[in-house]
Amino acid sequence: MSGPARILILGGGFGGVYTAIALEKLLARELRRGEVELGLVSRENYMVFQPMLPEVISGSIGVLDTLAPIRRLCPNTNLYTRTVESIDLDHRSVQSAAGFGTRQHHLHFDHLVVALGNVTSFAGQPGLAEYALPFKSLGDALALRNRVIHTLEEADIEQDPEVRRALLTFVVAGGGFSGVEAVAELNDFVRAAARSFRRLDPTEIRVVLLHAGGLILPELPRSLAEFAQALLSKRGVEVRLDTRLAGATGEHALLADGDRIATRTLVSTVPSGPNPLVAALPVKMERGRILVDRHLEVPDVPGLWAVGDCAAIRDASTGEVCPPTAQHATRQAACAARNIVSTLRGEPRKAFAFTALGKMGALGRRSAVAEIFGIKLSGVLAWWLWRTVYLMKLPGLDRKLRVATDWTLDLVLPPDIVQLKTERAVGVRREYFEPGQVVFRKGERGDRLYVVTEGEVEVVKEVPGRGETPVRRLGAGECFGEIALVSDGARSATVRAVSATSVLAVDRDAFQAMFATLPPLRGFVEQLIASRRA
Amino acid sequence: MSGPARILILGGGFGGVYTAIALEKLLARELRRGEVELGLVSRENYMVFQPMLPEVISGSIGVLDTLAPIRRLCPNTNLYTRTVESIDLDHRSVQSAAGFGTRQHHLHFDHLVVALGNVTSFAGQPGLAEYALPFKSLGDALALRNRVIHTLEEADIEQDPEVRRALLTFVVAGGGFSGVEAVAELNDFVRAAARSFRRLDPTEIRVVLLHAGGLILPELPRSLAEFAQALLSKRGVEVRLDTRLAGATGEHALLADGDRIATRTLVSTVPSGPNPLVAALPVKMERGRILVDRHLEVPDVPGLWAVGDCAAIRDASTGEVCPPTAQHATRQAACAARNIVSTLRGEPRKAFAFTALGKMGALGRRSAVAEIFGIKLSGVLAWWLWRTVYLMKLPGLDRKLRVATDWTLDLVLPPDIVQLKTERAVGVRREYFEPGQVVFRKGERGDRLYVVTEGEVEVVKEVPGRGETPVRRLGAGECFGEIALVSDGARSATVRAVSATSVLAVDRDAFQAMFATLPPLRGFVEQLIASRRA
Repeated sequence: MSGPARILILGGGFGGVYTAIALEKLLARELRRGEVELGLVSRENYMVFQPMLPEVISGSIGVLDTLAPIRRLCPNTNLYTRTVESIDLDHRSVQSAAGFGTRQHHLHFDHLVVALGNVTSFAGQPGLAEYALPFKSLGDALALRNRVIHTLEEADIEQDPEVRRALLTFVVAGGGFSGVEAVAELNDFVRAAARSFRRLDPTEIRVVLLHAGGLILPELPRSLAEFAQALLSKRGVEVRLDTRLAGATGEHALLADGDRIATRTLVSTVPSGPNPLVAALPVKMERGRILVDRHLEVPDVPGLWAVGDCAAIRDASTGEVCPPTAQHATRQAACAARNIVSTLRGEPRKAFAFTALGKMGALGRRSAVAEIFGIKLSGVLAWWLWRTVYLMKLPGLDRKLRVATDWTLDLVLPPDIVQLKTERAVGVRREYFEPGQVVFRKGERGDRLYVVTEGEVEVVKEVPGRGETPVRRLGAGECFGEIALVSDGARSATVRAVSATSVLAVDRDAFQAMFATLPPLRGFVEQLIASRRA
Repeated sequence: MSGPARILILGGGFGGVYTAIALEKLLARELRRGEVELGLVSRENYMVFQPMLPEVISGSIGVLDTLAPIRRLCPNTNLYTRTVESIDLDHRSVQSAAGFGTRQHHLHFDHLVVALGNVTSFAGQPGLAEYALPFKSLGDALALRNRVIHTLEEADIEQDPEVRRALLTFVVAGGGFSGVEAVAELNDFVRAAARSFRRLDPTEIRVVLLHAGGLILPELPRSLAEFAQALLSKRGVEVRLDTRLAGATGEHALLADGDRIATRTLVSTVPSGPNPLVAALPVKMERGRILVDRHLEVPDVPGLWAVGDCAAIRDASTGEVCPPTAQHATRQAACAARNIVSTLRGEPRKAFAFTALGKMGALGRRSAVAEIFGIKLSGVLAWWLWRTVYLMKLPGLDRKLRVATDWTLDLVLPPDIVQLKTERAVGVRREYFEPGQVVFRKGERGDRLYVVTEGEVEVVKEVPGRGETPVRRLGAGECFGEIALVSDGARSATVRAVSATSVLAVDRDAFQAMFATLPPLRGFVEQLIASRRA
């Protein structure tokens, strides 16, 4: 052989990391002798243990404890903590984004394992990208936790009963495993946390689960799903069946049936789309997933493998496409690793076949549903099983110890209500308004400029004897509210959307940082302001 | 009395929170009867337990465990989790920023306790605001932790030995308590964490402490400071005495003596300035702190009180100005609370006097220095004392339990190397370059536009036979690198700073979000690009 065989894995989730773990075991001798080089590219240096993510909402386990450092899991793999920018199959190389400075990495491979999962995608649903909280990464879980505490803080000092009601309404869309686990934790947490707020009445809190079908948890047998649905209702979750989320504004969840729910916290667990890198690959796809043969290799592209949620894998014994679960991803990883080694050694390869051991869903405070080897369990026993199984599955002895300790403390301690704001305010953001919705009202304090990117708004002024009268319309490319950027005063008019309208909102700091020092731009804005004032 | 007496506290640190706690005790009956109303405005809904902040760097205690929820500490106080925007002494009201939406709060008071502390201020030191990491809040500690892990990740895959050296150099400025505690934790953490990286050699790591004086920890007796300095050196910290930090670029710490240290991690614990709200008050100040009488009330402004780091308080027995420590702030809080109650009841007031019980500084792995009641301790015993005292002081039984557990686990578990990125990339940022420093080189991949805000840069091109030749100079208000925003290619020329230069760097996403939809601005940029290409 000329030089070591280079195996590169893309993705730091269950699929990618477990492929590396399996390869390290199978190729221990070759790795020691330098005959094989193993690399893994991951955006984060940790793997998220997804099943425990909902517990981050309530803080019942430590923020870091759902994460396993990849370096510790596969110590003989070269880890590149970078974003993948492009995959070049012709030249057998992968380009990763720059780290500090502007240096990129080109990584060459003989075998490439694609395990990039999928991404959250709100395409086609107006307002969701702007206002719905996804629930997929650790950042999402922390953001949701902070949002919930923030709304409680605001509700506690809010005088207006309508605003207060919206602040205390929490909506989760999607009645599958992840939506149900998230709504269960959220419901427990918000009701327990509210007790620490002087002026909140627990009966004011409303937690709503939207589900498109007639019964939640379609993945489970009917009796377990019914148990789960009844338990959630008993604990105060309003389950709305046959209801689909269609969009959102900053103040409402918009339902497909035309109804709307006033809320400031909307979580959507439904939509996921293919990773753009995967979509760009010149290979055959099935519903956005890479089609592989029964050995998990891409047909006609020797050396290209795919596992996990980004791959369309048919089980060899049942012929069915595997569901996107961690159980399947880890087995696919082991199978792909074995087949890569067999390929290197010129041995025969094996087809992928795996029957899921069971399914489990946590329902919050000491309850769960589970189906293990065909046996159905619910309630405390299922909950105990859930905790035991996932604690065993959690990679790394140190994590196991930390989580076990967290869970023990959590049985006796009150929930944590610290609002951990770590995100800096973003100076430019997109906002979406429904026809008729008010962008801002006369008299409100203004601190941002708006640019219409789609749709139309009207400026409304109070005319004596005639009430509110539209005085001007503004369309795409036009801006309003610019006076707020130079003076500290109140808005001089009300602006509301005429049609479905998207805008960019630019705050004063961002504006000044970008424009203050560019004379031609400053001149443009000054003229604009002068013309509006005239 | 007409209506309840309104006592309002500004600030959620030791001074503010302990004032509320003391008032709740002293006024328990009046609060129950509704004769008194107690309010506290704090940006966060928690109090940071500062002494344990350095341990967040290493993750040896949980991220949330240094934080105590204010609602639990003073349950009978109305908490407003808002930023204070202005204080109006004439109308006896405080205006807080808007929460969700645009609603502000106006809070009226009869007594106002100002406990707003101070703020980090890098004014007058070029490059520090852009590149130095402050170390004051929980966000700062998390950012530092992430930066350290990020540099280790990058160094592990970096080929260039010079870049690698800079990545593995960590500089902390300031040899007082907070600088010493931070550098000790950072040093322990980086050396332990490096063992999980395949291609890092621990001897490559360089941790530097800059101190302006001749001996670190000037607050302590000489013998303890000498012990601490020797211990840090033994553990691999390079202590540079009589050395002042003068500025920074993205690649260097600039020292006052003209020397420079190549680093990507610069922590400055030195500078703090008055809170702008405090500075704007129409009262007498002493070095940026509010001057109060011996009862902690502001002279000539009855009902206005100040405690903690934002107040200049002379000890009644020694006549000296109190140091800005938690010990003093909590005693001042108790004294102010007592005197406010005495004022309400028409009873005589007491002067503030307090002798510090002692001073302690943690030095990382099982070592500390302490001076308690005049007794000097160092090493393991001082470390044990440090942990015992601070665990006792940590407010709330649940926190005590959590931290005690963390500490126990930490004795047996390896340090956590998970890099918790929670900040979204900011699209616009300021950068600073020294004369002669290269902004970018020909051939590097370009993904941002630069706008000169101060100073001058030159564009350099390779001319056959003449080597690198300046072809154009650009000054304030001019921009360069704009082609990167429309094409994906490499930089066509090298740009370097001629004088000390500040720029705004705008990345492609931010640029597109702001400009793509504003036709006049787009036209301007298109013209600019066309003219440069011509």
